Amino acid sequence: MPTVFDVTTWTHSADPSITCYTDIGALINDIIARIKQDQPDQAAKPGAVIYIPPGDYPLRTRVTVDVSYLTIKGSGHGFTSSSIRYNTPDTSNWHELWPGGSRIKVQNTDGNGEAFLVSRSGDPRLSSVVFKDFCLDGLSCSPHQNSYLNGKYGIKVNTANDAFRIEGMGFVYLEHAVTVRDADALSISGNFIAECGSCIELVGSGQATKITDNLIGAGHVGFSIFAEQHEGLLITGNNIFPRGKSSVHFKNVNRSSITANRLHSFYPGMIDFEGVNKENLISGNHFRREVEPWPPMQSYNNGKDDLYGLIHLRGDSNMVSTNFFALNVAAGAITPPGATPVVIRVESGDANHISNNRAVTNVAAKAVLLASTTTATKVLDSATASEFQADTQNHTFRATP
Amino acid sequence: MPTVFDVTTWTHSADPSITCYTDIGALINDIIARIKQDQPDQAAKPGAVIYIPPGDYPLRTRVTVDVSYLTIKGSGHGFTSSSIRYNTPDTSNWHELWPGGSRIKVQNTDGNGEAFLVSRSGDPRLSSVVFKDFCLDGLSCSPHQNSYLNGKYGIKVNTANDAFRIEGMGFVYLEHAVTVRDADALSISGNFIAECGSCIELVGSGQATKITDNLIGAGHVGFSIFAEQHEGLLITGNNIFPRGKSSVHFKNVNRSSITANRLHSFYPGMIDFEGVNKENLISGNHFRREVEPWPPMQSYNNGKDDLYGLIHLRGDSNMVSTNFFALNVAAGAITPPGATPVVIRVESGDANHISNNRAVTNVAAKAVLLASTTTATKVLDSATASEFQADTQNHTFRATP
Amino acid sequence: MPTVFDVTTWTHSADPSITCYTDIGALINDIIARIKQDQPDQAAKPGAVIYIPPGDYPLRTRVTVDVSYLTIKGSGHGFTSSSIRYNTPDTSNWHELWPGGSRIKVQNTDGNGEAFLVSRSGDPRLSSVVFKDFCLDGLSCSPHQNSYLNGKYGIKVNTANDAFRIEGMGFVYLEHAVTVRDADALSISGNFIAECGSCIELVGSGQATKITDNLIGAGHVGFSIFAEQHEGLLITGNNIFPRGKSSVHFKNVNRSSITANRLHSFYPGMIDFEGVNKENLISGNHFRREVEPWPPMQSYNNGKDDLYGLIHLRGDSNMVSTNFFALNVAAGAITPPGATPVVIRVESGDANHISNNRAVTNVAAKAVLLASTTTATKVLDSATASEFQADTQNHTFRATP
Repeated sequence: MPTVFDVTTWTHSADPSITCYTDIGALINDIIARIKQDQPDQAAKPGAVIYIPPGDYPLRTRVTVDVSYLTIKGSGHGFTSSSIRYNTPDTSNWHELWPGGSRIKVQNTDGNGEAFLVSRSGDPRLSSVVFKDFCLDGLSCSPHQNSYLNGKYGIKVNTANDAFRIEGMGFVYLEHAVTVRDADALSISGNFIAECGSCIELVGSGQATKITDNLIGAGHVGFSIFAEQHEGLLITGNNIFPRGKSSVHFKNVNRSSITANRLHSFYPGMIDFEGVNKENLISGNHFRREVEPWPPMQSYNNGKDDLYGLIHLRGDSNMVSTNFFALNVAAGAITPPGATPVVIRVESGDANHISNNRAVTNVAAKAVLLASTTTATKVLDSATASEFQADTQNHTFRATP
Repeated sequence: MPTVFDVTTWTHSADPSITCYTDIGALINDIIARIKQDQPDQAAKPGAVIYIPPGDYPLRTRVTVDVSYLTIKGSGHGFTSSSIRYNTPDTSNWHELWPGGSRIKVQNTDGNGEAFLVSRSGDPRLSSVVFKDFCLDGLSCSPHQNSYLNGKYGIKVNTANDAFRIEGMGFVYLEHAVTVRDADALSISGNFIAECGSCIELVGSGQATKITDNLIGAGHVGFSIFAEQHEGLLITGNNIFPRGKSSVHFKNVNRSSITANRLHSFYPGMIDFEGVNKENLISGNHFRREVEPWPPMQSYNNGKDDLYGLIHLRGDSNMVSTNFFALNVAAGAITPPGATPVVIRVESGDANHISNNRAVTNVAAKAVLLASTTTATKVLDSATASEFQADTQNHTFRATP
Repeated sequence: MPTVFDVTTWTHSADPSITCYTDIGALINDIIARIKQDQPDQAAKPGAVIYIPPGDYPLRTRVTVDVSYLTIKGSGHGFTSSSIRYNTPDTSNWHELWPGGSRIKVQNTDGNGEAFLVSRSGDPRLSSVVFKDFCLDGLSCSPHQNSYLNGKYGIKVNTANDAFRIEGMGFVYLEHAVTVRDADALSISGNFIAECGSCIELVGSGQATKITDNLIGAGHVGFSIFAEQHEGLLITGNNIFPRGKSSVHFKNVNRSSITANRLHSFYPGMIDFEGVNKENLISGNHFRREVEPWPPMQSYNNGKDDLYGLIHLRGDSNMVSTNFFALNVAAGAITPPGATPVVIRVESGDANHISNNRAVTNVAAKAVLLASTTTATKVLDSATASEFQADTQNHTFRATP
């Protein structure tokens, strides 16, 4: 019973005219059907690996993954910048135009938005599905190439799952690269996810997940990393570049970590907390905020002004410590005009702890600002007296000498 | 001379009735014998790769690895929770029951405890043996399924070694998943090691090793990460979940790091130092301690009470800084009854340095406690006056304002 | 059209006597020529994978990579110590002598220094070239085996590039293991790079790159990690062992991070800043400096004395925080004789921020020293009064209590 399938040599069981070169989606669905047929015994379902060699493969039909232990892997994440190409007037002399590697061209002529939908009802949750070392390319956006909008999802996991891996992948020009609902012990590591509307969206709820060692940069319309109702999420060792509307967005996330990352943005709101987020640790990160330097993208922003903060904190008992901030915004580019930019803004919540941070700014800035409703925030060695603003008396402050 | 071997196509040299489906252990030993036969020249021993496609493979005979540069790899770590299954009364409607991927069923009918024993005498040490992307499943425990006891070892490296890699593996239901003696520059990265008695045990001595980017969670009987007499061990970027009797246990370990991890436990003693441990750094970690919520496991604990500390420090000149602790234990669950829980307990040693930590607790707690024999500990910005207890005068304390 | 090439089965198009066993370099060049011939269409160039099974392969001719999306991969990084072997008088009873795995013996009888040269003119930049899981062995050094000199380069990338990956590789006995010019979003992760003159050299300029999760240790003549004119470089989770003349060397590097690494050295100048480096973060690292214990290497050093500092800082507005230093140098081994060793030396620049560091030393030392030209340095909780030396009045100091 074979458990290794190569898309270039598989013959579709019903219609041999369907190949990986006409519709890799329909072909993979056929392979998955075969895996299920081959493994009918509840006690013996080891799964399989579907291999995608380097090549260009159109996906017209959505793949539905509903078996555990399936590895879909290629040999090459194949990222290249489509933004640069689309914004170059003449590419007639270019060596190559498109991303490559084991590249799936996400076309979805089936009316669905997802290239890969992972979903199964019943028990147990799907376990140990792996996506590895191939490229999902959304090809183009509309109404124009700098919109990052096209309704396309690279991988959408729609039911609860355990021990999944998304590793070594490349994603480009998808409105949503990776969306995972109700993740447990998910690993998203070593990927290149850029020029997508949103890169990583952890929706529903989740626990004990890690996002590590990735290169990530969303478009101006979406999230580089979004998580809601997660507990024990570890985000570490990532290099998160522009131009997401945020670098990390937490919505009602508790007891999670954002540590030892490098974050770079052209907008305020780099770490953005929505709802009530409790007992999270933000430590050892490098933040760089500057103004969009690339003409084709200079007309976009995330709608937030410089009072919003590079970190915008909502929630209780979070710790923000030992982070470095380098803010450089020409005085004339500050919004609202004449405002004093904010680095760490505690917008709401109780007992947040801000210690041992350092902000370097080209204009006078508030390194820490406490909004009026906040209570019992402690701010230690994170702002000089002049860099600190508290719109409440209910706080503790030890100025950086 | 072939150097790539597929267990599903290899014919046993002596007894063709032995296949990967009857005894993958005996089969791999036969492949290793062939590799040694093929590479007799001291100056030309590049090793080989043994490939295990997705499938269920019983291992009745222990594998002995005694050649350098051997890679044993599969296509799928195949983890799923066996604990949940064993504690579910009726699984008759489940899609699948067992772990999967490239799955070795560790049966060891040969009287040995190890699935893989790595051992060689003479010089040089074994180098660059690699275990990658397959699943070691210990199948069941005794006397009952929640004991995590069965005497089984997944991988035991028993002689000095250099530049080994254990990466992308899955381990489940083994009393000892990974045990490595006398490691030099070992890499344990990207693994899923859970529901094992102990997950990672670095015994003997060792240096310059890294444990990075893993998902780890031992059973209540053992260690998630144990190291003894190591120097320069780097533990970073791991998500360590319950229910090990500790998250990280150091025994006479010096100059090592525990940084940027997420640790979650149902017991005190999350970082547990035994013996004399010197000049280690514990920084940027998130600690979550709560009470076991899952009924099948609520009768177990690690025998330590809430006075033990989430960090229990023994040794000299260690630095504990910029960690976050979220302790939530219902007052009635505290042991001994009525005790004030301890977060960081310096139990013994000289000149330890505790700075810039933050503990959030649901009951009054001692964020830092210095035992009576400790000397010259410095505690800075890690506890308010009321959160601090020193049973010795020999210390320096700057209270968190 | 095949896109997966195995070097052991490929027949050279012009001269069938050239095989992977006579000259893997010429053979790979022939495969690359075929890839280019097979993919003439600017709009369809997915690239390919060239596979190197375990084996010993001489490289006499330099490989030139000038196509995007090419993955060159093996099955085994194959590191073993050549230093130990060369310094062992009698190895006649050794099991094996040389490194292994998928091992390329870098011989370069073609007059070139590089095993792999990656270079292409025109647009766009090369993208997503991947080197993975094989071994580059420079074989020997001259004038003697402890010189780490032989003029050999493992991988040299000589033109601007995007989204490259160097992962899982082994490098040994090359004067320059990895040299990359003008990198954008490069990933160097999971490699074993040791006993090379220099390990990683990022030259020219670069941005948004990560060096993560590696085991690295250069020879006394070169760099473990060197970067110049980089921005947003993230160096995290590496175990950097001796004996490089530095562990990390920055030359005019801005807004980059060195976090959560373990660094071990036998010389001062572990982090060495040259030129003007701005707004970098050095945090959560463990530094160990001791004296070379191995007789064959005791005659070498990097020429720096103990006043140079374990960290030697030049530049403005850098943050050095929450690092641990363990310095152990016998009094008689200190240079210049009788000097007081320095841990963090701020040699030049403005507004550097040194906070919450801890140095443990076997002799009296200056934990922080500010040179006379420095201005506005802040030193907080990083030295006691007696451990601090400022050769300028222009600073702020809060002593560790």
